[in-house]
Amino acid sequence: MIKVGIIGATGYAGQELVRILLSHKYADIVWYGSRSYIDKKYSDVFGNMFKLVDSTCLDDNMEALANEVDVIFTATPQGLCASLVNEAILNKVKIIDLSADFRIKDVSVYEQWYGITHKSPQFIDEAVYGLCEINREDIKKARLVANPGCYTTCSILSAYPLMKEGLIRPQSLIIDAKSGTSGAGRGAKVDNLYCEVNENIKAYGVTSHRHTPEIEEQLSYAAGEPVVINFTPHLVPMNRGILVTAYADLTADVTWQKLRSVYEKYYGGETFIRLLDENVCPQTRWVEGSNFVDINFKVDPRTHRVIIMGAIDNLVKGAAGQAVQNMNLMFGLDESEGLMLVPMFP
Amino acid sequence: MIKVGIIGATGYAGQELVRILLSHKYADIVWYGSRSYIDKKYSDVFGNMFKLVDSTCLDDNMEALANEVDVIFTATPQGLCASLVNEAILNKVKIIDLSADFRIKDVSVYEQWYGITHKSPQFIDEAVYGLCEINREDIKKARLVANPGCYTTCSILSAYPLMKEGLIRPQSLIIDAKSGTSGAGRGAKVDNLYCEVNENIKAYGVTSHRHTPEIEEQLSYAAGEPVVINFTPHLVPMNRGILVTAYADLTADVTWQKLRSVYEKYYGGETFIRLLDENVCPQTRWVEGSNFVDINFKVDPRTHRVIIMGAIDNLVKGAAGQAVQNMNLMFGLDESEGLMLVPMFP
Amino acid sequence: MIKVGIIGATGYAGQELVRILLSHKYADIVWYGSRSYIDKKYSDVFGNMFKLVDSTCLDDNMEALANEVDVIFTATPQGLCASLVNEAILNKVKIIDLSADFRIKDVSVYEQWYGITHKSPQFIDEAVYGLCEINREDIKKARLVANPGCYTTCSILSAYPLMKEGLIRPQSLIIDAKSGTSGAGRGAKVDNLYCEVNENIKAYGVTSHRHTPEIEEQLSYAAGEPVVINFTPHLVPMNRGILVTAYADLTADVTWQKLRSVYEKYYGGETFIRLLDENVCPQTRWVEGSNFVDINFKVDPRTHRVIIMGAIDNLVKGAAGQAVQNMNLMFGLDESEGLMLVPMFP
Amino acid sequence: MIKVGIIGATGYAGQELVRILLSHKYADIVWYGSRSYIDKKYSDVFGNMFKLVDSTCLDDNMEALANEVDVIFTATPQGLCASLVNEAILNKVKIIDLSADFRIKDVSVYEQWYGITHKSPQFIDEAVYGLCEINREDIKKARLVANPGCYTTCSILSAYPLMKEGLIRPQSLIIDAKSGTSGAGRGAKVDNLYCEVNENIKAYGVTSHRHTPEIEEQLSYAAGEPVVINFTPHLVPMNRGILVTAYADLTADVTWQKLRSVYEKYYGGETFIRLLDENVCPQTRWVEGSNFVDINFKVDPRTHRVIIMGAIDNLVKGAAGQAVQNMNLMFGLDESEGLMLVPMFP
Repeated sequence: MIKVGIIGATGYAGQELVRILLSHKYADIVWYGSRSYIDKKYSDVFGNMFKLVDSTCLDDNMEALANEVDVIFTATPQGLCASLVNEAILNKVKIIDLSADFRIKDVSVYEQWYGITHKSPQFIDEAVYGLCEINREDIKKARLVANPGCYTTCSILSAYPLMKEGLIRPQSLIIDAKSGTSGAGRGAKVDNLYCEVNENIKAYGVTSHRHTPEIEEQLSYAAGEPVVINFTPHLVPMNRGILVTAYADLTADVTWQKLRSVYEKYYGGETFIRLLDENVCPQTRWVEGSNFVDINFKVDPRTHRVIIMGAIDNLVKGAAGQAVQNMNLMFGLDESEGLMLVPMFP
Repeated sequence: MIKVGIIGATGYAGQELVRILLSHKYADIVWYGSRSYIDKKYSDVFGNMFKLVDSTCLDDNMEALANEVDVIFTATPQGLCASLVNEAILNKVKIIDLSADFRIKDVSVYEQWYGITHKSPQFIDEAVYGLCEINREDIKKARLVANPGCYTTCSILSAYPLMKEGLIRPQSLIIDAKSGTSGAGRGAKVDNLYCEVNENIKAYGVTSHRHTPEIEEQLSYAAGEPVVINFTPHLVPMNRGILVTAYADLTADVTWQKLRSVYEKYYGGETFIRLLDENVCPQTRWVEGSNFVDINFKVDPRTHRVIIMGAIDNLVKGAAGQAVQNMNLMFGLDESEGLMLVPMFP
Repeated sequence: MIKVGIIGATGYAGQELVRILLSHKYADIVWYGSRSYIDKKYSDVFGNMFKLVDSTCLDDNMEALANEVDVIFTATPQGLCASLVNEAILNKVKIIDLSADFRIKDVSVYEQWYGITHKSPQFIDEAVYGLCEINREDIKKARLVANPGCYTTCSILSAYPLMKEGLIRPQSLIIDAKSGTSGAGRGAKVDNLYCEVNENIKAYGVTSHRHTPEIEEQLSYAAGEPVVINFTPHLVPMNRGILVTAYADLTADVTWQKLRSVYEKYYGGETFIRLLDENVCPQTRWVEGSNFVDINFKVDPRTHRVIIMGAIDNLVKGAAGQAVQNMNLMFGLDESEGLMLVPMFP
Repeated sequence: MIKVGIIGATGYAGQELVRILLSHKYADIVWYGSRSYIDKKYSDVFGNMFKLVDSTCLDDNMEALANEVDVIFTATPQGLCASLVNEAILNKVKIIDLSADFRIKDVSVYEQWYGITHKSPQFIDEAVYGLCEINREDIKKARLVANPGCYTTCSILSAYPLMKEGLIRPQSLIIDAKSGTSGAGRGAKVDNLYCEVNENIKAYGVTSHRHTPEIEEQLSYAAGEPVVINFTPHLVPMNRGILVTAYADLTADVTWQKLRSVYEKYYGGETFIRLLDENVCPQTRWVEGSNFVDINFKVDPRTHRVIIMGAIDNLVKGAAGQAVQNMNLMFGLDESEGLMLVPMFP
């Protein structure tokens, strides 16, 4: 059994890790870290875990934890993982960081967009960007995996094949994304109160959202040139789900079938990517609770653009599910172990 | 492997059966019956099943089906199962009926509350009321199980121990129930449109809801005398979940601890009933997607009443989950096989 | 023009006062009090007021305010109004208190249920309970009006005629109430986050909610004897609306028509009470945004009980609308001035 | 008093017309037309209108109606108004058509996108496109006004000043729009059931939505050249509200202040357009129930694009409110008569 420690187990992503790992055949959570709820029973914080988890919340002592577990998930605010990790720890355990600390290779870009100083830049190079469908082989050998952001996972996977094959003009990409409210976290803020979110939609972080450079970096690798994009997230009154609608200029006259064959080239063998039938639009409800990414697109001959659409569950493929997928790869397990979750509807 | 046929696979309860059975180790769905969608791919109706179910919808020919499967689930409107079943069929397959056709022993009560003539009253006596926690042994031997209604499951299980032990005055019981909208079914009706349900709560079927006689019959067995109650269902703007708040006069001065010990006597060994800690109120979000029933209660010394609260997911313990629990019992499997679903939050 | 000051203008009820008073022909808000947002533009807090309100938030100095306005609304937490008011102030301005400070005549009951010491018990006797349909004449002469609670308004008005006429057994009354989330206030609490409230229903304050003694006191006046009831509030995933479902034993064999004539006797001339047609259940969506109370009931000959149902918008008739109705009465205006709000649907 | 007839009074837009006109000082609804509900009391269809509207639904006989009223609103499916209108009728009454029949000047474009034959193309030229802020003077003189679509109102008004002033490259415009569910109408369709819409977001009509040519036509007038755009609508789980997020290449290096001055040039004197302060994003909740359009934008120096955002209530400024605004203009009333609706929050 893989012994698992979670730092940040009482956020939404941390709790989703617990939900998934409880049904994982080869993993056993031994450390529920939560600075805010130390000594409180985990199931008192999340009533769904009553009778399922009997543990009490512990602190975030990564040194101590490293001696007790095989893998640490950090589902914490930006900066914390980078401030705790060190060589000794990495020699003992594998770390899957759900924060942004090790996602961006250029530390100055990280520090500019996140507004904090990186505490352990020496590990950035080593860290593997944990987008399994793209970096599978590197992940298998990694000590430290930077689990991608929710918006970025959906955005990158949706656009990747066309960017990689040069079928869209890199600088023309515009990503309009919509997220359920669990993406905003469990902090007690007026902006996230029920009455403020319900019956409302808004854009936020326009031109400045921190997932922008992460998307740009990964798509730049695909394009083979620096990519600068517009990325606009929106808050939607629902618990879970991210929908990405992306627009790009086509570099050639192509049909849906042609583009589809390109997607199949990259994703044809992927368990968690579902390429939808022609004219079917992704909907977040069809992936809720699962690790699937549903992707489709439409060619617009009037504007010579392609409209790409992708849907994920932000807490699963956008966070905890992908983290477990990374764990499976890092420990040589079947990549889909514990992740064959049937989407729950309605 | 148990070969499973579902008649009514494209309603919400039928689809939930599919969701649950896809992860069941010993069951294999071979017949997706749906009169409205014959010849249509099942995953075209429910996009969550894309790449998971490759089958096409079939009709509801129970005779033909009986030759192909080991168990038939009927998740259909009242009257259909009773109109299809016969001795020859029952000799070949087990039937778990999610409709009300075989729940009520007195056929005249059924016909009065449901307003239809029962087509096969000869099987009513044989049919076992499939409330596993109460009728477990009978279910194991049954050919025909009447799967309880959603409101009734939550109502009966919440009140049963106190009624059985004579701790509440039977005729004083008042059940105020609240349900998510999936309980209203997938029919295209103006009343169930998003804009009609959202930002609204209403009572319906006041004094006349058809789950009333079903609750009364079962609680009468417990009380050892005919029980007549008030039952008022309400429609709540959410997808899933039933919360029952019930009120009854206590027959003695008792403490919470005393009543708790009574609940433990009946449910202490039950996998799917969670008796909550003192002062914790059941909430539907903590059982969503799972087969759990969360129960608690409060003694009010001012009024000498007990307020009993129960929460279930109406599509799981209130329909498909309980149906699978029944199947497990009927086929000698571990009762919780395929049902250790961790509640999904948020 | 009546000059109006609001203390607590940045809560949900305070903001609703602003919404209503902006369309009131004879009122002019001159003081937007909000301790938390002093010096901030009001329309920066509530974007709906952009270009409609140009004022900046002020503090809660009731002494200063009393010199500038004709009426003060206090939409603040319990205790604040009682701690600020004094004889000099009451000699200058009328006060309509939306908190509970002056609702309960027995100060010990107040202190027990609210857990705070009353700071100005000397004004409790004088204060008029501002349920306009019942205390109209007293309100007209009042200096200090205690605006009723949201649950209490709906509960009392629904049951009052039957209690007054002795048609129900007082001690048998059970009130099961359901409220939208704006009733929980605008404080930043995890429990009220979108993801915690959405897809959930729960009871809270079972046997201990602070609106209980308020309902009991007013219904005791109606019954002519002390009334002790069960009152159970529930939190519903919607912004606005309260639905009350109440159960009581009938003291005689009566028809719907008979009870209806009793309701007409009390409410036949009321502008804001709508007695629905037989078999029509109140729904919160039909009163949203308006000052209406929709009432109906059902006689159950099987249990000899009546099930009474009432619906209001908790922020209008349950708070700000009723407060303005009180203001209209106190200043000799048409009672419905500014309150003929057509319910908004959907 | 202006005597008003409504054909299609039982759809969401028709009912919103009723809500608004009930508070209009100079209008009186005398005909509630609804083919589906003939002879049914209007308040039996919409319970919010109980005690406010005493009328019964009538048919859609426009000939008869023309003799009884001064203005007819048609809030009906595409094609109906065009099939009913004729010269005799237009000589008697003014018509404000909320359908698309007279919005598009090129009848072949209409017939192609809507897939129906236009029954009275002879009136297309005469019809005035009822976007009050742009066509005010023509509307005043019109017999027949084509009330703009909901998406189009928000899209056009958001982009108009920049298009008109040549500050954005016309062919670069991409509009990503999000709408509440009332925009989908009150028809009983599975797709619009609560459980299908709740907890979901999806794009629909990608590259083919019928509001596309309407937006293109109007923006072409502004640009002085044919404009071809991408327009993608999305369905959001909320009752009301449209948010438009639009992307366009800037034709010059400009600041927010520069663009703001352009918006002020066009909208500075407009009652219903609110230009928000820098860095404030429009949110649908701040316009709910009102006739306001909230607009703002962000300049992205990294991509040389502007991101324009606009928010309206789809049933008010996107339908009924704008229709009343047109009526006010056509009858020489104050344009804002009956429309100074304070947005309702929460």
